[in-house]
Formats: sequence, C-alpha cells, structure tokens
Amino acid sequence: MRKTAAIIGGGVIGGGWAARFALMGWDVRVFDPDPGAARKVTEVLDNARRALPGLADAALPKEGTLSFTETLEDAVIDAHWVQESVPERLDVKHATIAAIQAHEAGSVIIGSSTSGFKPSELQDGARDPEMILVTHPFNPVYLLPVVEVVGTAANPPQVLAEADAVLKDIGMHPLHLEHEIDAHIADRLMEAVWREALWLVKDGVATTEEIDDAIRLGFGLRWAQMGLFETFRIAGGEAGMRHFLHQFGPALKWPWTKLMDVPEMDEALIEKIAAQSDAQSGSHSIRELERVRDTNLVAILRSLKGQNWGAGEVLNATDAVLRKRNGMVQRFDQIEDLTKSIMTLDRTVPLDWTDYNGHMNEAKYLQAFGDATDRFMEIVGCTPEYIATGGSYFTAETHIRHLDEIHAGHEIRIETICLDGQGKKMHLFHELWEGERLCATGEHILIHVSLKTRRPSPPSELIARQIAAIEEGHKGLDRPEGVGRYVGAPR
Amino acid sequence: MRKTAAIIGGGVIGGGWAARFALMGWDVRVFDPDPGAARKVTEVLDNARRALPGLADAALPKEGTLSFTETLEDAVIDAHWVQESVPERLDVKHATIAAIQAHEAGSVIIGSSTSGFKPSELQDGARDPEMILVTHPFNPVYLLPVVEVVGTAANPPQVLAEADAVLKDIGMHPLHLEHEIDAHIADRLMEAVWREALWLVKDGVATTEEIDDAIRLGFGLRWAQMGLFETFRIAGGEAGMRHFLHQFGPALKWPWTKLMDVPEMDEALIEKIAAQSDAQSGSHSIRELERVRDTNLVAILRSLKGQNWGAGEVLNATDAVLRKRNGMVQRFDQIEDLTKSIMTLDRTVPLDWTDYNGHMNEAKYLQAFGDATDRFMEIVGCTPEYIATGGSYFTAETHIRHLDEIHAGHEIRIETICLDGQGKKMHLFHELWEGERLCATGEHILIHVSLKTRRPSPPSELIARQIAAIEEGHKGLDRPEGVGRYVGAPR
Repeated sequence: MRKTAAIIGGGVIGGGWAARFALMGWDVRVFDPDPGAARKVTEVLDNARRALPGLADAALPKEGTLSFTETLEDAVIDAHWVQESVPERLDVKHATIAAIQAHEAGSVIIGSSTSGFKPSELQDGARDPEMILVTHPFNPVYLLPVVEVVGTAANPPQVLAEADAVLKDIGMHPLHLEHEIDAHIADRLMEAVWREALWLVKDGVATTEEIDDAIRLGFGLRWAQMGLFETFRIAGGEAGMRHFLHQFGPALKWPWTKLMDVPEMDEALIEKIAAQSDAQSGSHSIRELERVRDTNLVAILRSLKGQNWGAGEVLNATDAVLRKRNGMVQRFDQIEDLTKSIMTLDRTVPLDWTDYNGHMNEAKYLQAFGDATDRFMEIVGCTPEYIATGGSYFTAETHIRHLDEIHAGHEIRIETICLDGQGKKMHLFHELWEGERLCATGEHILIHVSLKTRRPSPPSELIARQIAAIEEGHKGLDRPEGVGRYVGAPR
Repeated sequence: MRKTAAIIGGGVIGGGWAARFALMGWDVRVFDPDPGAARKVTEVLDNARRALPGLADAALPKEGTLSFTETLEDAVIDAHWVQESVPERLDVKHATIAAIQAHEAGSVIIGSSTSGFKPSELQDGARDPEMILVTHPFNPVYLLPVVEVVGTAANPPQVLAEADAVLKDIGMHPLHLEHEIDAHIADRLMEAVWREALWLVKDGVATTEEIDDAIRLGFGLRWAQMGLFETFRIAGGEAGMRHFLHQFGPALKWPWTKLMDVPEMDEALIEKIAAQSDAQSGSHSIRELERVRDTNLVAILRSLKGQNWGAGEVLNATDAVLRKRNGMVQRFDQIEDLTKSIMTLDRTVPLDWTDYNGHMNEAKYLQAFGDATDRFMEIVGCTPEYIATGGSYFTAETHIRHLDEIHAGHEIRIETICLDGQGKKMHLFHELWEGERLCATGEHILIHVSLKTRRPSPPSELIARQIAAIEEGHKGLDRPEGVGRYVGAPR
C-alpha cells in the first residue's frame, strides 16, 4: 500500500516536504487556507522534479499523487505522517496541532518544522503529546539531507524509531538531539553568523557580497564536506585536538566578535542590507536564483557522492535501497530469463550532465555506459568485494553512436547484451533508451586484469561460468544493428 | 624573469603559501629557524602537488624552485613578495617585519597572514608602514581562492593594486576590506560559530560529530556556493529582502544563541571535545584527513567550475589566463604550421577523475577528448560567441582505444588531426599522450547543426574555410594507426 503524508502549511518549507514525499513515492495531501498555497507548492514541486530525480543514481519510485484538501480533516485522515509547517507562532502551532489530533485516533506522528520552538512547548496541552516531535528540515527540503529530530521524555522510543524510518525512507539523515534547546543546533550556528554579519554590514566593514565571497570562496567549501570540528582537527595537525583547544582557549577572550551585543534591525540597517543585496543578486529573479542554487547543489552533492563522503555517503546509501526496491538485477541468480537482455541502468539525467549545447554532454554517455558496465560486472560476480581481492575488468575499446539527443530530467535506461565472454575477454553491447527512443549505443571490450601486475589475467571460475551462461543465453538474440561498425561506416 | 616570493614562517600556512607560489611558477625561498620547517613545508607541497595542478583545466606554469635559507636576509633579498606567517604574537610580528625591512630597500610588499591583528597594529613603528598589508588566506592555502586584503590610510593605492595583481597571478581572489577590524571578516564569522558550538558541546546538546553533520549535510552545502546573504535572499522569496529583514528582526531578541556569554575552555571542556573528536575522526590520521579534504575540495570546486559559479568562476578565469600564457593555440591565425597536428589539451589529471580501479575512469577519457574537440572547434571559429548565434557541432560517433593506464597527477596532452572537414562533417582523430606514452586514441565524427532546428546545417563560411585549410595541411601526415577500426578488430 502506498503511504500518505499530510502536509499542513504550504509555504516554501511545506512545499519542500510535499515535493520530497511525492518524489520518493508517497501520496501527499496538502492543507493550507492560503488561496495561493497550491500555486506555491506546485512551483516548489516543479523545482524539485528538476533537481532530485537525477541526483539519485537509481530510479526513484513512481511519483505519488499530490492533492490539496478543503479542510484540515481531509488532509490528516488515515495519514501515515503529518508534517506541520505553519507560521512560527506558538499559538498558531498549538491550534494546528489540536486540530490535527482532533481528526485522528492518536496513532500518527506529527513532525513540526519549527525553527525555534522546543518540542516540550509544542507538546504542552496537547491530547497526545507523545506523538509530537520537532522534525526541522533545511531549505531546499527536497535536496538537503539533514533533518533535526528533537523529542522529549514524553515520546516513547518507538515513536522516535518510527520517525527515523519514515525520514530515511524519503532519503533524509535524521539528526537526533540529546536535549531540546531553543533553535536546535543548526539555526543557532547560523544565527550566530547572522548576528556577526549584521554588525559587519552595519559598521561598513564589508558589503553583503563581500561577506558571501568570504564564505563561499573560503570556509564554506570546507564546511560543505567536513563541518567545523573535523576541519579544526586538521588545523590542529599532528599535535592533536587537545593541544589545539589549549592554544585556542585564550582567543575566546579576544574581541573577535561583537556578539556580546545585538545590532538594532532599524530601517537604516534594513535599507543598507537590502540595497547591497540588490546590487549583488538583483540581476537574477528569485526563481532564477533557486535554479542556480539547485543546480549547484546537485553538482556539489554528486561530487561528494563520487567520494562517498558526508552528504554523498547519505545519498549513496539511499541509492542502494532504491536499487533493491526497484527490482534491478544485482546478482546472477536474480536473472529470470537468461535469453533476454539485462537492464543495467535506470535513472534520470541529472542537472550537471548537460553542456553548452543544452543537452547531455558526450562524456556523460560514456559515464552512463560505464555505470552500466559496472552493474553488469557486479551481476557476473565482479563485485567490490571481488575487486578488493585483486581482480577487475579494464575497458580496452569503446564505440559510441549518438543517435538522438538527451536532456536533463529524461528518464534513461540501458539494456545490455553480452556478445562474448570467453577467457579474459568481455564484449558488451549497450543500448541507451529514453522511452521508445534509442538514443545511443555503446560497444565495449573489457579485459580481466590482475590489479597487482596490471596485466591480463583469467577471472575467477564463478565469474567465467556466469558470463558464459549469459553469453550462451544471448546467442539467440538478434545481432544488434551497429555491432562491429567503425567510425564513419555507411549506415 | 621568474619572480621570487619570500616566505617567512614555514608552518601549515607558510607552507601553503610556498606551495601555491611554487606551483604557480614563482621561485620560493623559505626562512624559518624551526629545524622541522623544511619537512613541514615539503609535506604541504606534496599535498599541493597532488591537488592543485589537476584542479586547473589548463597546464600550470613550470613549477618554481623551493629553497630554505639560513637567514632571513637570504630569503628576502631581491624578493618580489614577502609573506609573513610567523606565530600570532604582536611582538614577534613586529620583530619579524623590522628584520625584513632592514634587509630590503622598502620596495617590496609584506603581506601578513595574521588571523587577528589589524594592519595598523602591524605598521605601528615600522620603517616603511606603507608596504605592510594584511593578506589573510585560508587553509589549505593552495586550494581555497579567497584572501582577505586589509590596508590602512598609510598604504598608497598602487601598493594595493600591486598586491591585487600578485594574488591574482597565483590564482587567488583578493577580498578588500573597507575598514580594518580585529579578525577581519571570515574569522569573525567562524569565531561566532565556534563559540556557539562550544556551548552546544559543553551543555550536552550535541556531539562534535552531530554538529559537523548539522553543517555539512545542511547549510554548509548552501554556503559553499552562495554564502549567507544570497541564501537568505532566496529564503525571503518574491516578497524581497526588505520584507525578509523586517520579519527576521524580532528573532534577534530571541534566546537563539548563547553568545552573550563565553564558555570557559577548562580541562573538562577540552577533554569532552577532544574525546568526541577522537570518536568522530580518530580512525583517520591527520594526513589522511588532509587528503580526504583536498580530494573533496577538488571535486566540489570542479563541480562549481562546471557551473561557472562562485569559486568555480574564479578558477575558470585563472584557467583562461593560463591558457593564454601557455601559448596554447586558441585561434586559427595562431597556428604556426598547418601541416602539423594541433595540441588541443594540456593538463594534469585531477583527483576526482579516478575510480575503483585506481586509475583514470573511462568516461574521463571521453571528457578529455571532448574538451580537446571543444578547443579544436574554438580554433576553427566555433566559439561560444558563434554558438550563441545558433550553430554548433554535435558528436555523432566516437571510437576510443585505451592503450595504457593514466593516474591522477599525470600530465596529459592531446594532439589532434583533422581527417575530414567537408560540408557539415568534421572527422577528428585525437592522440592522448602522457610523456612519451600513447595512452589512448579517440576518433570522432561531428556534424554541424542548427541549435534551433536541432538538424544538420552548414557551418559559417569562415569555419568551413578554416577547417578545410587544416584538413588540407593534415593530408601530408601519416594516417594514424587505429583510424577506421571497429571494436574488437585484430591489431
């Protein structure tokens, strides 16, 4: 059965939750009395559809339905998760939570997107306080993996465990706080920087653009992959973290921040910041900036996936779950019919695969074919564990025919035939499809090598046997048009 | 004449400066009385050699010499830049600056790496205060582009202009502060986060690892590409920055930070943080962490280059300068001998181009060939400006032979022959060399298309004429072995 998420409050954050749940296969019902809510949520979903599917290196589940309900009751009834993202006023939050619990039997978790309130404040006076948690996400909710999960002693462990399972199911990384605190973790850190930055602008030390450059051309790059403490651990060097902290201690007494004081957000400061921000970013509309941000985030996140580090590690773990759920063949014994080609790739083209011609760059065709070859290798037994024992396949030769264009957002799949798998050789033919369009073919010869000598060597008996069985099965298939062609051969 | 940088103080920061200057073609002389300095600087240079050359999509200048001098005088004499990176004590800084100026005629700029001191404090009592500036970099100095440049009224504009030129020459982005302030910009922001984070750990709200995850899986990713204000501008949405600031104002009064107070860095807090940091990162040595960080940074920075945004835009601008200086042919009229193959790529293999087999991934061969094709297109007149008018070349077919392995850090070049350039067709043959090793060949047919109809169309007359001239010139070359082969053809 498909699961249903009720999204109460359809602003940027509620819309982000709606988009993430829907793209990860949940049905979504949104309630927001604002007549503009449907437009806003749909716009966020459009952005999310552009960015999230290609971020994964596996096909996402079929997108869930999105509906807007007339009443709060219609949204929450029989829902498997309720996400509250109404304005940041405690009285509004209390009224909303009371209305939600009035319409269900007390069995559904209510996650609150609150930036500042503690869960005990939200639970206060509720009928079922044990089902209320803070689940605080970050914009854009459909791309950034972290979500702060904060409960109280009123929440039984199984509620926290269930929340964890739901959030992981939609590709997020739940970060549990030991103790509740105003503004949780991340917003406290951001608030500290914000207050300091306001002083720098107010005092004329730097403009908004200079402050942004100081961050994004410097420590922001460090924080995107290691955060604060691991970065400082490196700064401490071989002498170690304790030594570093001893050294750093005195600086805490130095006048290195103005944070003993808070700037007044008066009209003059508002005007100064807004004017500088216009000068810095005003040539782009907010929608354009959102798209730039999302494309940058997809590119950065995919670069971290390549290193399997930080956010990239979280995303790779989600991909592995998706592949299993998709029913993609991962092992030889999962092949149902050896006489059919094998689907070795099923994914959406990510935003960072396009080039100046406005379509998928030629090198990404080979990346897709290479990924498909990796999957085929895994199926015949050349797994990461096997490679760790010192054997692998190297590509010796490749022939690609580009038959039609592919764009970011296209769902592509690769069907693979094994033409030869005798001895050290593996001769594969990949067809890359978008719907019913054959967009490219890739013909490849790989050679099994010893990773120690870097010379050709026979594969394991298991691999040899499994490849031979596939080759035998594929002998009955029509020889694909395009096999054995040279570049420029007449068609 | 090659220029010389004198690096006074050879710790992590001084070593980072030494590495950046040397890899960008400056001769470097280091003075540091610490007997371990040569080892430390060499280790930083090793890290830098691994990461920086491949970050550029152009060949770097020939690496400068690195020497260690017995005396400060030997380091600074006739230097074109002096970078001071001695310990963060004002008396030590003053003594060092006085010694530097005692050994030169007052014509060299002294940039100080100080994190905290203001330039007026450094200039105080100096013989030539007008030549002293703060030029504060960020670790790793050889990868992060930003450098804070702070002067006083004592510095004439031409000193600041010269500093700018030197820092840009080594690929950095000088960020000028309007007014001097303790700890400049970035360290104030970091100090604010650091103080807040210390409270979170001390109060048991979160561990060091949880705080790092809150950053690197969330807002750290936003900051790596847009910083603080542009991110908040998006959060403000269509209502605009002024509206957002009005809304945000009240939060400044809320108890969202503990920054009215400073935690005591006592033994208990040191032990708590150090133990958590060991649990988080202790399975990696500092050297390993440095390499992970550098590989991540190269991958992130290269992803931003692909978007030509933020730090990526800075790096792309440096590449353009490098290509011009290298004497790479960029326009048809720069070709000296039409009968010779054309060098279309000259670069170092970056860290993020390798895969699980420990060598350059197959898709990156096609990326290199594609980059070479782009350069060839530019040479014959299919420039970004031409493409903007609606014509371009699409690759129709590709044949790659992988002849030998390539690893990260290898210097590779591509020599290109035009086999056919009649009508809409362009038939290219690329040879990819590492030193005297032919590592791969790429044979490609491209078709000129209208970007509007996406159908074949004739190129401009200029392009047709220039391709024809190259094809004619290349007719006298030996037909390369490997042309016209099919996959699996006997050698």
